[in-house]
Amino acid sequence: MSPWHAAQIGDPVDSIDTPALVLDLNAFERNLKRMADALKHKGVRLRAHAKSHKCPEIAKRQVALGAVGVCCQKISEAAVFVEAGIQDVLVTNQTMSANKVARLLALAKRARMGILVDHLQQVAILRQQAQSAQVPLDVYVEVNVGANRCGAAPGEEVLRLARDIMASPPLRFAGLHCYHGGAQHMRLPDDRRKAIESASDIARQMRDTLHEAGIPCDRITGAGTGTFWLERDSGIFNEVQAGSYIFMDRDYSDNQPGPEDLLFEHALFVRTTVMSHPTAERAIVDAGLKASSVDSGMPVVWQRPDLKFLKASDEHGVLQVAASSTLKLGDALMLVPGHCDPTVNLYDELVCVRDGHVEALWPISARGALL
Amino acid sequence: MSPWHAAQIGDPVDSIDTPALVLDLNAFERNLKRMADALKHKGVRLRAHAKSHKCPEIAKRQVALGAVGVCCQKISEAAVFVEAGIQDVLVTNQTMSANKVARLLALAKRARMGILVDHLQQVAILRQQAQSAQVPLDVYVEVNVGANRCGAAPGEEVLRLARDIMASPPLRFAGLHCYHGGAQHMRLPDDRRKAIESASDIARQMRDTLHEAGIPCDRITGAGTGTFWLERDSGIFNEVQAGSYIFMDRDYSDNQPGPEDLLFEHALFVRTTVMSHPTAERAIVDAGLKASSVDSGMPVVWQRPDLKFLKASDEHGVLQVAASSTLKLGDALMLVPGHCDPTVNLYDELVCVRDGHVEALWPISARGALL
Repeated sequence: MSPWHAAQIGDPVDSIDTPALVLDLNAFERNLKRMADALKHKGVRLRAHAKSHKCPEIAKRQVALGAVGVCCQKISEAAVFVEAGIQDVLVTNQTMSANKVARLLALAKRARMGILVDHLQQVAILRQQAQSAQVPLDVYVEVNVGANRCGAAPGEEVLRLARDIMASPPLRFAGLHCYHGGAQHMRLPDDRRKAIESASDIARQMRDTLHEAGIPCDRITGAGTGTFWLERDSGIFNEVQAGSYIFMDRDYSDNQPGPEDLLFEHALFVRTTVMSHPTAERAIVDAGLKASSVDSGMPVVWQRPDLKFLKASDEHGVLQVAASSTLKLGDALMLVPGHCDPTVNLYDELVCVRDGHVEALWPISARGALL
Repeated sequence: MSPWHAAQIGDPVDSIDTPALVLDLNAFERNLKRMADALKHKGVRLRAHAKSHKCPEIAKRQVALGAVGVCCQKISEAAVFVEAGIQDVLVTNQTMSANKVARLLALAKRARMGILVDHLQQVAILRQQAQSAQVPLDVYVEVNVGANRCGAAPGEEVLRLARDIMASPPLRFAGLHCYHGGAQHMRLPDDRRKAIESASDIARQMRDTLHEAGIPCDRITGAGTGTFWLERDSGIFNEVQAGSYIFMDRDYSDNQPGPEDLLFEHALFVRTTVMSHPTAERAIVDAGLKASSVDSGMPVVWQRPDLKFLKASDEHGVLQVAASSTLKLGDALMLVPGHCDPTVNLYDELVCVRDGHVEALWPISARGALL
């Protein structure tokens, strides 16, 4: 980790060194509150996905506004949040590693921990370790509700897995994980609606099948920023896992909005500087693909319709400059990243700004937690 | 930074936790030696690009085999290598930040440091700081030799910049930076040859123009792994900046090889585990785009023609499994990353293996050094 910081607390925004990952605290806090309000009195709780921010300071604020806890994608990531005092963490992923499960169970002595399965072999590893450690653990069956990634096929396999967990104390069958990742970035609201209607139908059928078999299934969890209001209103989901809503990225703002998508605003930016301006039409900024992840496309230059971010190499971003532009060498710009999660994962800290000054530096403590 | 390590020294390779960034030391050392041999007695020196590895242990080995020093892309990155004892570091980039230049000059008290310019304003910032600090600094004029990224247009502007540097002691005009990034991944060797012939012609003209104006220009530097042998044999370049040759990635191996491209072999891998295998045709590994950068396309599964890496989300990789495959849930696989530089930048250490065991853990000390 580089010992250099892009800013110090109290610095004016104009003096932030670049590239830096900047969080607009006013916008961020509005996003936090909007999600809390959107779920109030709906019988649906928020388990915010921490893979988006990897930042305990943010998780604490989500919990303070009503989130039950967080999701993580990795057990080493979960460890960071347990260490920071988050009391309820669900690892929304499978593992085949007995070593990792042992670490998960060590965390489960300090906080409520959960994990997913979609195969009996995963249950067997969890059972062996949990029985040896005598530590309870929430286990959710992941159901493929349309994303065609992980997840057991809807039907007998889900029932078999739930039964196997039920028969394996101290494992606890905690519910169904029904996340439709493929729906989050469907551009048309109607497409997202249809996808989540289908996912909700599958979730309902699976819950009913479990109930008929005498297996209580109290928790149906899933959803992301692109669809959370559909799951919220589905009558079957009772927990949503949105993560990106706090930041919003270019990829989410490219969705044609549904009624609740209007809630959120861009709060995360990569601050960058024009370091080279070789021709009138071309300028180069000091933020490339190691400063703003391009897996979901290029960033956009915030509030600068005269500038188009054309391409990125490791440490260079190439801008197309309109003839009317007044851009100068040395100008600072703000980029809205194409995809917030992997962009955050490139930085060691968030430079948190409000009203023109740096108010805080928040460590991205789970950056690089891949295990 | 996560306190968890994927392995300990002495562990068998089979027990490395996943995902992990694995360096095959035998292949890596062969790559090191092949580059040294390829430049021997050619009058061309290696200034290895450290943006690819960000690892002082690797830089030391490059210098031990004859490299004059390293290139870095950022001043904060350069600081890591100076701290580790590398005595000659060129920042192959521009800056408009007086604050960064002050830091560069602090490094220049400890090692020979260089930087690029392509505009008089950059020279002015360097001059002001260097005169104030009374520290000499190598300054190279970057020439646009075809990549159309940074770089002054060939012609009067190059002469003007060189003159301005010459007139600004303690700045030293060190030479021309003529890197053709756009040529590195042209798939056909003939296209690469033509591009570097053109770049070499421009470099020669610029050097001759400078000489005619009485400005000595002893150093023409540039080249990457995809073309270094063309610059080596150009008669005009006398320093090459290859970086990826130590690792090789999928994007470089997709080049149709020229005569010298056959030298290098894959030495860098992402070790991953099949964590879900929901259907016969689909398996999910625990390495997604936070474990293997996808900016230059998907990784490939090493020596497994039965498996195709189809797509990546944050922490999931989706494999297409051939009907004939014997792949099982829990199997470990090795991925060849699409692009080595940003993949290395996702990890805190390299797990270095030889003959089936972990021989060393090398910190990626400049990971995330963006300033």
